[in-house]
Amino acid sequence: MMCYIILHNELLKQAGGKSMATKMKMNEIPRGTEDLIGKEARLRDWVINMVRNVYEKYGLEPLYTPIIENAEVFNGHHGEGENLLFSFKDKCGEDLVLKYDSTVPLARVVSMHPEIPRPYKRYQFQESFRDDETDKGHYRAFIQLDADIVGVETMLGDAECVMMAYEALSELGFNDFTIRLNHRKIIKAIAQKAGETSKEGFLEIQRAIDYADKVIKNGIEGIRQDLERRNISSSVIKIICEIVEKITDNPVDTLENIRKYFSDNPVAQEGINELEEILSYIPNRMMPKVKIDFTLARGADYYTGSIFEAKINGIELGAVLGGGRFDQLVEAFSSEKIPAVGFAIGMERIIVALKELWLTERMEYPRKLFILDAKNPEMIKKISKCANQLRNYLDVSILYGISDYKAALDYVKAKAEQYWAVVKLEKSGEVKIKGGSEDTISIVRQIFEREGYLI
Amino acid sequence: MMCYIILHNELLKQAGGKSMATKMKMNEIPRGTEDLIGKEARLRDWVINMVRNVYEKYGLEPLYTPIIENAEVFNGHHGEGENLLFSFKDKCGEDLVLKYDSTVPLARVVSMHPEIPRPYKRYQFQESFRDDETDKGHYRAFIQLDADIVGVETMLGDAECVMMAYEALSELGFNDFTIRLNHRKIIKAIAQKAGETSKEGFLEIQRAIDYADKVIKNGIEGIRQDLERRNISSSVIKIICEIVEKITDNPVDTLENIRKYFSDNPVAQEGINELEEILSYIPNRMMPKVKIDFTLARGADYYTGSIFEAKINGIELGAVLGGGRFDQLVEAFSSEKIPAVGFAIGMERIIVALKELWLTERMEYPRKLFILDAKNPEMIKKISKCANQLRNYLDVSILYGISDYKAALDYVKAKAEQYWAVVKLEKSGEVKIKGGSEDTISIVRQIFEREGYLI
Repeated sequence: MMCYIILHNELLKQAGGKSMATKMKMNEIPRGTEDLIGKEARLRDWVINMVRNVYEKYGLEPLYTPIIENAEVFNGHHGEGENLLFSFKDKCGEDLVLKYDSTVPLARVVSMHPEIPRPYKRYQFQESFRDDETDKGHYRAFIQLDADIVGVETMLGDAECVMMAYEALSELGFNDFTIRLNHRKIIKAIAQKAGETSKEGFLEIQRAIDYADKVIKNGIEGIRQDLERRNISSSVIKIICEIVEKITDNPVDTLENIRKYFSDNPVAQEGINELEEILSYIPNRMMPKVKIDFTLARGADYYTGSIFEAKINGIELGAVLGGGRFDQLVEAFSSEKIPAVGFAIGMERIIVALKELWLTERMEYPRKLFILDAKNPEMIKKISKCANQLRNYLDVSILYGISDYKAALDYVKAKAEQYWAVVKLEKSGEVKIKGGSEDTISIVRQIFEREGYLI
Repeated sequence: MMCYIILHNELLKQAGGKSMATKMKMNEIPRGTEDLIGKEARLRDWVINMVRNVYEKYGLEPLYTPIIENAEVFNGHHGEGENLLFSFKDKCGEDLVLKYDSTVPLARVVSMHPEIPRPYKRYQFQESFRDDETDKGHYRAFIQLDADIVGVETMLGDAECVMMAYEALSELGFNDFTIRLNHRKIIKAIAQKAGETSKEGFLEIQRAIDYADKVIKNGIEGIRQDLERRNISSSVIKIICEIVEKITDNPVDTLENIRKYFSDNPVAQEGINELEEILSYIPNRMMPKVKIDFTLARGADYYTGSIFEAKINGIELGAVLGGGRFDQLVEAFSSEKIPAVGFAIGMERIIVALKELWLTERMEYPRKLFILDAKNPEMIKKISKCANQLRNYLDVSILYGISDYKAALDYVKAKAEQYWAVVKLEKSGEVKIKGGSEDTISIVRQIFEREGYLI
């Protein structure tokens, strides 16, 4: 964990009654957090709107859960990830944590509210928090766009999640991406084949597979060498290398290959059958972007069936979304077994990907009319009246303190406005268009003709 | 502070490998937080959309700041309120807090980003956190809909905030509300008149006025008695009672009365002049809901000029919004003096008020088409295809596990759907409308005619 170096107190000078260190800390945000200003904030809203429309199209509804949860809620679902919880006590000494994800709170909600009719299909766009290392598109506070279906046994639920993932990425403008599918039962079969039956053994193999995923670009030989370096047992390495060799570009073929390989393992056959059923529901037009990949493991402890992830091709970036089936998570809260499947899109990584591929250019700014300011209170009164009249048609911003067009132009440029016009109220009561983007000038002219402003 | 009683360990029974206490905590949310499920979540989104449209109309843009801030950021701006900060350390031992409001982070952002052109008009719809007592519409985690203008000297900024507050409440459907205005300089003048020049003395008077606000329903005599009981000095009580008597329903008259009362006090005259200027910019149609009220104090330390609040009349509920001018807050971060004014709407109280006045009935649910499920994988494949085709026109939800219309009807009723239809795919390939709301049935019928479904 990389920590900030704390400056020696002796070196601190006083500034405005506060120490220099305090002033510095006041002008910083915690590592792995961000301010989203101007276009960056609009970009987040744009992504949220796009994804929400897709989720609503599949019948999902919104859910909000608290940012702070009782510590007990997050115990035992995220394996090693739990070391990353932000935890604290309130005034009453209650142990609280910042939410680590939105899947565990969903299970809690379903357990606490048996009156919610099932299938319960919900999306949730809220921040999660992990006291982790940070890098590109990897924050300690981040937004996930979760979509989950609770109370669904059929594999169509899993398939609809893959469809939503596909539609969301497409709507955002991504053309070249791969959705990779695997199944926890196939990972279990690998463990069985390697003679590992303990939970620890299974987790070690899950981690080995996850690691293989990260080095697969070096080919089978690269995977072998890297796993050897990590002291993975040779029988496990052998199996992993063997099944990786079974992967083809055609997911149906891949499943056929592995079905033969695991012909004597009923757990593997279950997983393969389920993956096959999922594939059968996915529309043909989506199939070229769907791949079966046995190096996919996923971190969370709670997955029980299908697991999947998507990566944007052509850029160096981790998965932009991931999910899977978790048939036993609700049970941990309520003792009632309720099957469920879902996934989450990582907002911050999506933004990185959109930027690297210049897809942010597709976002349109709202149209805005700016009115130059004046100093005389009587003129200001008229400007306010004029602004309020124009607000019947457009978003109108009074340029407080800016009364000449050149300064207004600098302002509009600095804000990277797209559709805009600047107008000035003359002493005579005339409203003059001083400049703007062509389309907006033409709209403002029409409004003025209608409202009877002199131009 | 009311704390939960911790059950004795001896009394705890084991349940599913976890103690009963743990299971209980897993099925609870922290005091003063909430899950928003179904209609409740849609209500939040509805309010956010309404208010966002008003703020955008006045030229504001979105901003997001982190939920976790360095502890130093929130020191010294909220007086006694700072006792309510949720604070904790990260893995590196850095002192962090959960954001207490969105005004202080705004000042930090402006200080850290001098490149942001001014006037900087921003809205911010994020949660804030206070480890406080809880009651109706009063949570420990709550959303405020902040609107602020940074870099505005003219009182039109204050007036536009009042206008936005008025428009937002009107758009949400409130007809009977009062926006109360006061000025920190008038409070200062009261302190001066009472011979109090220290900061503590000023704060004591501010609190006395705030308290007077809470008991004003008992009349002047009630205020006097209550303030005496709180050991407020008799000279302060006398002045408060005198100025409360100057309040009339007409804000311009009220200011004239107080101008005479404070004729020898230049600080009061400044405050009165500013309030007069603000009133002069407010459109006539809004004036009947605007009142000058000298019992308004507001808690935050950072206000320097006008302060205002709004209450919904006819229901027992605190202020639903509040704000004012804070010309020195940015200075605390950057040493640069940047005048600013703004306010925030309290989401949770707005929701309480909407519910008490039955205004939530104005919210419209999205239209939804439900398709009955089947068991046979071949039928499921066809249902999925049918759903995807219909998604070109409508939001479509497959009713996993529900294959008969009666069960579907219970589902739709439990979800309180408004615009809906249930269809069934027959083995023949026909899609049949089983029932729904009239308008939606007619829309579905049109789609089917166009798509060529047999009905």
